[in-house]
Amino acid sequence: MKKKITLKEISKRFNVSISTVSKALKDSPEISEKTRKMIQAFAKEHNYKPNNIALSLKNQKTKNIGIILPEIVHYFFSSVITGIERYATEKGYNVIVCISNESFDKEVINMEMLANGSIDGFIMSLSRGTERKQDFHHIKEVINQGMPVVLIDRVTDEVECDKVIIDDFHGAYSAVSYLAEQGRKRIALITMPDYMSVGRLRMEGYKKALEDAGLEYDPELVLRMEDFYENFEAIEKVIKERKADAVFAVTEFFAVSAMKMAQKEGIKVPEELSVIGFTDGIISISSSPSLTTVSQHGEEIGEKAAHLLIERLENENMAEQKPPQKEVVKTTLVKRDSA
Amino acid sequence: MKKKITLKEISKRFNVSISTVSKALKDSPEISEKTRKMIQAFAKEHNYKPNNIALSLKNQKTKNIGIILPEIVHYFFSSVITGIERYATEKGYNVIVCISNESFDKEVINMEMLANGSIDGFIMSLSRGTERKQDFHHIKEVINQGMPVVLIDRVTDEVECDKVIIDDFHGAYSAVSYLAEQGRKRIALITMPDYMSVGRLRMEGYKKALEDAGLEYDPELVLRMEDFYENFEAIEKVIKERKADAVFAVTEFFAVSAMKMAQKEGIKVPEELSVIGFTDGIISISSSPSLTTVSQHGEEIGEKAAHLLIERLENENMAEQKPPQKEVVKTTLVKRDSA
Repeated sequence: MKKKITLKEISKRFNVSISTVSKALKDSPEISEKTRKMIQAFAKEHNYKPNNIALSLKNQKTKNIGIILPEIVHYFFSSVITGIERYATEKGYNVIVCISNESFDKEVINMEMLANGSIDGFIMSLSRGTERKQDFHHIKEVINQGMPVVLIDRVTDEVECDKVIIDDFHGAYSAVSYLAEQGRKRIALITMPDYMSVGRLRMEGYKKALEDAGLEYDPELVLRMEDFYENFEAIEKVIKERKADAVFAVTEFFAVSAMKMAQKEGIKVPEELSVIGFTDGIISISSSPSLTTVSQHGEEIGEKAAHLLIERLENENMAEQKPPQKEVVKTTLVKRDSA
Repeated sequence: MKKKITLKEISKRFNVSISTVSKALKDSPEISEKTRKMIQAFAKEHNYKPNNIALSLKNQKTKNIGIILPEIVHYFFSSVITGIERYATEKGYNVIVCISNESFDKEVINMEMLANGSIDGFIMSLSRGTERKQDFHHIKEVINQGMPVVLIDRVTDEVECDKVIIDDFHGAYSAVSYLAEQGRKRIALITMPDYMSVGRLRMEGYKKALEDAGLEYDPELVLRMEDFYENFEAIEKVIKERKADAVFAVTEFFAVSAMKMAQKEGIKVPEELSVIGFTDGIISISSSPSLTTVSQHGEEIGEKAAHLLIERLENENMAEQKPPQKEVVKTTLVKRDSA
């Protein structure tokens, strides 16, 4: 039995990164000619097929849509899939999901795999690894070969394609303004690192809302979490030492965690500490008190993305006719009992 | 551009079910010869390729694993994917996920699509539609063609293959026994319909625990929920009328909902009403009081399933050497504050 070699195996063989292999196979001038030739020869010898998108596109439509998301344990992303599924099914398309696990390499591998004739187009959200690396060659390549891509939520200006984003700035602005209106003076922000587009925009919304409310910006109240299951020491410190009278967290998990920490310390929510989260998932409804949140409308984002993609798939000449679209889905502040 | 016709389109064209089309294309004697010939001719004419698994298997390995799950908004299933991903990545395999949305038709379509050369083997959990219909021809077919399948959680005795299941009977038994030990006399069960294997086994565990504790079985206390987002009237009635002094719910969402309903009525949890859930997800930790649960160990199930599948994929003669395995993952009662 002939075994197909994978990108990963080639990268191991030559002790280079997945990205280098991927670029070399696409004959990118970024990679030295020697390395390119070496990798290409090896790949050919071992039956590796780089994606023949153009070919597969010209031959037949698969009626499959590929989705690549950073994770799915997160309620937001799983509701995006629900939205895509709903619209795609209605239009007779099937959906295939791959998870990048926040890894750039995994994102490239997934893309190679799916672009190899399995699907007609992509809907994807960038992994943290990709945002950190700022390397988008794999996405550009696929688009150059004529396969449409829709980026959602975590996007980049570096790639020209349809995008569906959340109004992160406005979402953060409205939450923090709401807290300020209720007389809160020391509003803590639990957020993502700044290299992530969503983290940056929410941070800007937070700052602007403070400014407009005449509140001082205090860096000590800004807690940047690298991971979903970050250790909570920084949050605990702010809450235990009663440094904040309100918390705005960019995930509902962090929001509920802050709320529980406060309750453990005998701090009353919302009387002594108001809490607002981002993402309106099942946790927000289940918590006590129920969580006031900025709803991201994941399903709506999924539906809009599927609409944009299928529109391009079904109108072959659209690429020339219609420039890339950017749709912004407005967030809503869902007022419950925690603020 | 030549468009590939889909199972769904063929089924519409002849006004027959997806299942009939799928069986006809596989030349199943269940379908009348006339219908078979008609569908086969139409499919051929329209360039429909039934899955050539045997062929693709003989030619090359894709190093991709296909996963088909009923849904992913559910914490249990998303943690199963995390477990599969982890093990598969370690072994150099990629993972492709499709969602059946609890629909039999969707499950068949997904299977056809992936089996068509994209993957080497399946890990899947049956949709409700499939369990209701008791039609497993699509799975049997794939196995007959030499592609290994591992069934997890929602399984059936009708299909001979590797299986990883949760000890549902024991999980329910231990939860209900724990409630009885604490002096609870009227223990309500919120569960799934009996046609689902997991629902049936948890029901049996519930009954046995009552019997062993010398408690009477009262059908009025058994609430069968068809859907995840069922209307809650039945639960509300039992709780408002204080018919139960404890609740064992087979999902954490139902458990937390029951808890919140009780709190709304001024019923103290756990003093007046003890609550235990199944599935140890993020909701259980986030709720107040935190939820005592039967942990299903989704990641462990995913890892075990990936292990069984990859073992077969990498040992070609295993089918003859090793009969189908059935691994049972023990549940654990995680004691928190709600019971």
